[in-house]
Amino acid sequence: MALAQLVYPGAVHTRLHHSLGAYHLMCIAISELTDKGIEITKEEAQAAKLAILLHDIGHGPFSHALENILLQGVSHEDLSLLIMHHLNSASNEILKGHLSLAIQIFTNQYPKKFLHQLISGQLDVDRLDYLSRDSFFTGVTEGLVGYERILKMLTVHNNELVVEEKGINSVEKFLMSRRLMYWQVYQHKTVLASEKMLVKIIERAQLLFDQKNEQVKTGGVLDYFLTASHWDLNKIDLNNFSQLDDTDIMYAIKQWQGHSDPILSLLCNRLLNRQGFKCIMQSDPITSAQWDEAYQLVKSKFPLEEKDLGFLCFKGTASNTLYKNDNETIKILLKSGEITSISQIQNALIIESLSAPVKKFYICLLKE
Amino acid sequence: MALAQLVYPGAVHTRLHHSLGAYHLMCIAISELTDKGIEITKEEAQAAKLAILLHDIGHGPFSHALENILLQGVSHEDLSLLIMHHLNSASNEILKGHLSLAIQIFTNQYPKKFLHQLISGQLDVDRLDYLSRDSFFTGVTEGLVGYERILKMLTVHNNELVVEEKGINSVEKFLMSRRLMYWQVYQHKTVLASEKMLVKIIERAQLLFDQKNEQVKTGGVLDYFLTASHWDLNKIDLNNFSQLDDTDIMYAIKQWQGHSDPILSLLCNRLLNRQGFKCIMQSDPITSAQWDEAYQLVKSKFPLEEKDLGFLCFKGTASNTLYKNDNETIKILLKSGEITSISQIQNALIIESLSAPVKKFYICLLKE
Amino acid sequence: MALAQLVYPGAVHTRLHHSLGAYHLMCIAISELTDKGIEITKEEAQAAKLAILLHDIGHGPFSHALENILLQGVSHEDLSLLIMHHLNSASNEILKGHLSLAIQIFTNQYPKKFLHQLISGQLDVDRLDYLSRDSFFTGVTEGLVGYERILKMLTVHNNELVVEEKGINSVEKFLMSRRLMYWQVYQHKTVLASEKMLVKIIERAQLLFDQKNEQVKTGGVLDYFLTASHWDLNKIDLNNFSQLDDTDIMYAIKQWQGHSDPILSLLCNRLLNRQGFKCIMQSDPITSAQWDEAYQLVKSKFPLEEKDLGFLCFKGTASNTLYKNDNETIKILLKSGEITSISQIQNALIIESLSAPVKKFYICLLKE
Amino acid sequence: MALAQLVYPGAVHTRLHHSLGAYHLMCIAISELTDKGIEITKEEAQAAKLAILLHDIGHGPFSHALENILLQGVSHEDLSLLIMHHLNSASNEILKGHLSLAIQIFTNQYPKKFLHQLISGQLDVDRLDYLSRDSFFTGVTEGLVGYERILKMLTVHNNELVVEEKGINSVEKFLMSRRLMYWQVYQHKTVLASEKMLVKIIERAQLLFDQKNEQVKTGGVLDYFLTASHWDLNKIDLNNFSQLDDTDIMYAIKQWQGHSDPILSLLCNRLLNRQGFKCIMQSDPITSAQWDEAYQLVKSKFPLEEKDLGFLCFKGTASNTLYKNDNETIKILLKSGEITSISQIQNALIIESLSAPVKKFYICLLKE
Repeated sequence: MALAQLVYPGAVHTRLHHSLGAYHLMCIAISELTDKGIEITKEEAQAAKLAILLHDIGHGPFSHALENILLQGVSHEDLSLLIMHHLNSASNEILKGHLSLAIQIFTNQYPKKFLHQLISGQLDVDRLDYLSRDSFFTGVTEGLVGYERILKMLTVHNNELVVEEKGINSVEKFLMSRRLMYWQVYQHKTVLASEKMLVKIIERAQLLFDQKNEQVKTGGVLDYFLTASHWDLNKIDLNNFSQLDDTDIMYAIKQWQGHSDPILSLLCNRLLNRQGFKCIMQSDPITSAQWDEAYQLVKSKFPLEEKDLGFLCFKGTASNTLYKNDNETIKILLKSGEITSISQIQNALIIESLSAPVKKFYICLLKE
Repeated sequence: MALAQLVYPGAVHTRLHHSLGAYHLMCIAISELTDKGIEITKEEAQAAKLAILLHDIGHGPFSHALENILLQGVSHEDLSLLIMHHLNSASNEILKGHLSLAIQIFTNQYPKKFLHQLISGQLDVDRLDYLSRDSFFTGVTEGLVGYERILKMLTVHNNELVVEEKGINSVEKFLMSRRLMYWQVYQHKTVLASEKMLVKIIERAQLLFDQKNEQVKTGGVLDYFLTASHWDLNKIDLNNFSQLDDTDIMYAIKQWQGHSDPILSLLCNRLLNRQGFKCIMQSDPITSAQWDEAYQLVKSKFPLEEKDLGFLCFKGTASNTLYKNDNETIKILLKSGEITSISQIQNALIIESLSAPVKKFYICLLKE
Repeated sequence: MALAQLVYPGAVHTRLHHSLGAYHLMCIAISELTDKGIEITKEEAQAAKLAILLHDIGHGPFSHALENILLQGVSHEDLSLLIMHHLNSASNEILKGHLSLAIQIFTNQYPKKFLHQLISGQLDVDRLDYLSRDSFFTGVTEGLVGYERILKMLTVHNNELVVEEKGINSVEKFLMSRRLMYWQVYQHKTVLASEKMLVKIIERAQLLFDQKNEQVKTGGVLDYFLTASHWDLNKIDLNNFSQLDDTDIMYAIKQWQGHSDPILSLLCNRLLNRQGFKCIMQSDPITSAQWDEAYQLVKSKFPLEEKDLGFLCFKGTASNTLYKNDNETIKILLKSGEITSISQIQNALIIESLSAPVKKFYICLLKE
Repeated sequence: MALAQLVYPGAVHTRLHHSLGAYHLMCIAISELTDKGIEITKEEAQAAKLAILLHDIGHGPFSHALENILLQGVSHEDLSLLIMHHLNSASNEILKGHLSLAIQIFTNQYPKKFLHQLISGQLDVDRLDYLSRDSFFTGVTEGLVGYERILKMLTVHNNELVVEEKGINSVEKFLMSRRLMYWQVYQHKTVLASEKMLVKIIERAQLLFDQKNEQVKTGGVLDYFLTASHWDLNKIDLNNFSQLDDTDIMYAIKQWQGHSDPILSLLCNRLLNRQGFKCIMQSDPITSAQWDEAYQLVKSKFPLEEKDLGFLCFKGTASNTLYKNDNETIKILLKSGEITSISQIQNALIIESLSAPVKKFYICLLKE
């Protein structure tokens, strides 16, 4: 959860935990569907399990927080897929060729579309796991999700995942949890401000690196990735990528505390000493007056050039870009046998509310 | 939880558990408010704790299910208050006179209105306890309530309970839980049908009793209450009332299995053998056609007089009458210091939805 | 848990919960063993599940507390078996003949002995469930048992259940939990004293009944069982037995409060008003001096005949007779492939301690 | 928990969690004791809370695993005390002078000895927290400790902490948990082997550093500590020490993978790729034959000088040196008012067993 632990100290769980958890839920889902008479062959089951185990393997250090910053133009899904292809053609005899079906499912090219939907869809095991896990480790109990019941309510119709009618309440609760976790945890203003500070540090280091500043180099594998240029997926050295982890970033930040560039050392010091940006977050757009006030305040404290001030004072919008809201709807299997969208259900009051756009506006500024 | 255990076998927790739980939450609430500088004297704290410990003492056997059936015209709150007055004037030296303040708070006659609101209001410790407890013991995890956080978010303004702005998400979740528990548990159609069968049994026994049928008498304290007449609160023998419990009802039902009245013995046999009413529940009113079909079906199976058929086939509406929706609104203390109603909060999407009327229509009928 | 709820108010869980829980653990156990290559046919699995579901069906009201009191000379296992035979030969087509294998397993006549051991043995699913469940509902967390791990460590050798070496710690903890629950809960002196009061009530009622006292009759099914005579298993009316439950006992006690026999009414009043026996429990035998002091105290308070005083003052020993310690040992499968008894394991320090006899001595006396 | 996560992936909880948890338990303990009439002034309470918050602040990276390796001759308690003194005399006005009482308690120089015992004693809140926490995060449920009950059973006699008689079962369970966690988690042979590999890496780096090998320097604060010399507590630069964390060690290991010294790079590669030492652990001392076989095996695979082979093959003993068994006994307050040692209690069977020496012998060797 990147830097969420600065607000929720318990949130130190790892990507390994999430991958094993999502895998566990996939096993349950497949077992439930099979019990209901949905045909899933042994090969398909194994492929779906492999795909979910590997679905996040393309995440780099601090995952979402540095996605598209550290490797501009490359999503973690692209990298996950690249690594799956690599493993599939590796010399390793255990894996060689055994990921072909997993890749088809992962990329939604397999006819049994529901297998893909279990990995990436409105009710996928990825979300079921991370919402449950993140609620638990942050202590935000309101976000807990009844994943056992949701998995029991799933079935398949025309090769697509649908939810049995009596599961509607659980699905509503799940959507409610997502919304709540989104604002209370993932986009909590102090979490957001800390993660933006991390972003600004990397962007500053990239700027210096691209200006041939030697002092910014760490001597480690991070140097390979310290460019602001857009990457060509096929030119990424996967060996280097697999070596890169949070340690490289944290070590660099510790070293850059003493860097001669005043912006870089300032930001690094502030992050390590937990003196992050002040963040104003609101439902209405930031007004010119608000922006001017913030900008002038920072300018008066830190006499810097215009182009550098942007590292200490900036604005933006928070919406659920990190956790994408697909266009897919959740389909309900009525007791009558009909299929309908959850938004068509009478008394399913919350759905409409939850489909409203969620967007907040923020300013981050460094105070003395 | 009356007969909810027929659907949710775990739901065998008792009124004692609930009373101790609500008392525990009251202790936490008072401690939190005191820590925030709200003045609560030692006497007020003790009185509020006594009041919550006793708030449900007026419930009879099977609580809500038989309320207003077994003692027509008398609510459990009336009885709780009567018992409190009785204890307050009892010869028992520990209690004598010590409940006066508790009674003032319970009846909302005490100036510090928030003490009453903690016992009976939109966010009282009664609801916080029963929602949490009932969710837990039924296994309906979606109903879980973050009571710890809600209690931490409470404060007082103008002697009324208000919620700090940052607690809005938790309050929304709480309202959502109430709605969900209402339909998924308290008014679950099989639970409702079972509790209606219990009601019909008592109503039939009352009819026979008022017709001087001697065989309906049990020989126990229940006989004192076996009349369909409206009760005058002040004429109830509290000693008899305090002796009456679920055992008397269950024993009577076991005995009435062999009663010569065919309706009474039929209903008792069916309840004990878990062959309850079939229940149709829907959002639209029951149509004449639906009613006729059901009625004719029962009539054909059980050749009875018109006046007796009503014990085997009847219709009604389910709405949250058991768990009253006061007119009170939940007040929010904004960071700016202003007070507003939760329904005025931007993005508090769910509130509006939840205030919509909730009503369902049902037919119960006995099948062979 | 009979009257344990007088000390541990949460302990209101039911025999249905336990039966479903033990069934659930049996399903896990069978699945684990099958995964390890132990052959268990579909029929054997179903039979073992049926046997565990029915293993306690012969328990009467207040289970262990009134076992051998209400139906003298008959154990609950005998009755369970009788009921299984009855169901097996019933006209019910679903059951008829389908319990034969379950009965063979239950009575340890089936060659795959490990199936019987899962139902009744040192590490059976019965104990695993009730220890876990009773710990949970009493809140005695020290009694919690790692049943998931123990089930994972089970395997089969020569048709007998054995534990893999790496499970030794878990088994030690399980034995420790049994011992702890035994003294802290099942034989807690206040629980014991309450259950003995229940026993004395029934014994007094039996005495009166056998003396043809008409007032002791309740009018219900309990009357059939109100004799102190030894029962012949084959003469018990199973229909009557299946009707009998806690309600009959509790109703009788409520009625007997007003009985003309002073001993019976006194004991019933005391139990219902939670003014039970005072209990002295100790590791050393009760001395004559202790006994005399207690007896004289009771005699001075209640001027009764010698033969009646025994209902108000008596002594006994508490040892684990309720939860029998079979002679069977727990067998360990060493990594070397050898089988050994757990007591032979080096460093398995606790085993020896736990095999020591556990016995305590008590006096119960009624105080004014 | 150093490298325990290689065996128990959930065990990623941090020292911050433990410090906050132990602080929380201290708050409960003080509140319980105060409720029992033990006099604890506001200043004493605050000092005890400060002392427990800071009790582990002297731990370096990977805590116990590198204690006395990275800073030879210096214990973490020495460093905690040094830092407390430093904070107490710091220019920071909030802390200056306010730690004097905390230091007295921490060093057991304060007359109310029980305050020290709560921080460091047989039943201190440190152990209660780490056993509970480590059990939870490893999933070794057998290690769970009933800390709430133990804290409720504590009282004070002659300024020393004693346990009320009825808490004996809980204390026995606590001691049992310590023993179980010790062997199943803290000294699990794979955990031990991994932590020994970490030790060997640091020792090798120290050797190279002391031989003036420049390549071993990382450029970071670790370099300051990379000597095998014994440290003089008073010469440690606390600013450097406070900068040092797990990141520095992990980054160094990543860098040293490419070091020219074959032993150092081999060990680093192996640790990062989870190909640790094979570990043989047993109750009997390692025989010459066992040692020779292991040594010759390593020698045949890695043709190295005698003095270097010791980094790849070595033996030792595991006993509870990390978690010291003080000579202090646990004192029990009998109902009679007498004080006795828990080992004198009749039927306290386990105590004697647990006081037996626990020692295991191991060989670690690197296999190809």
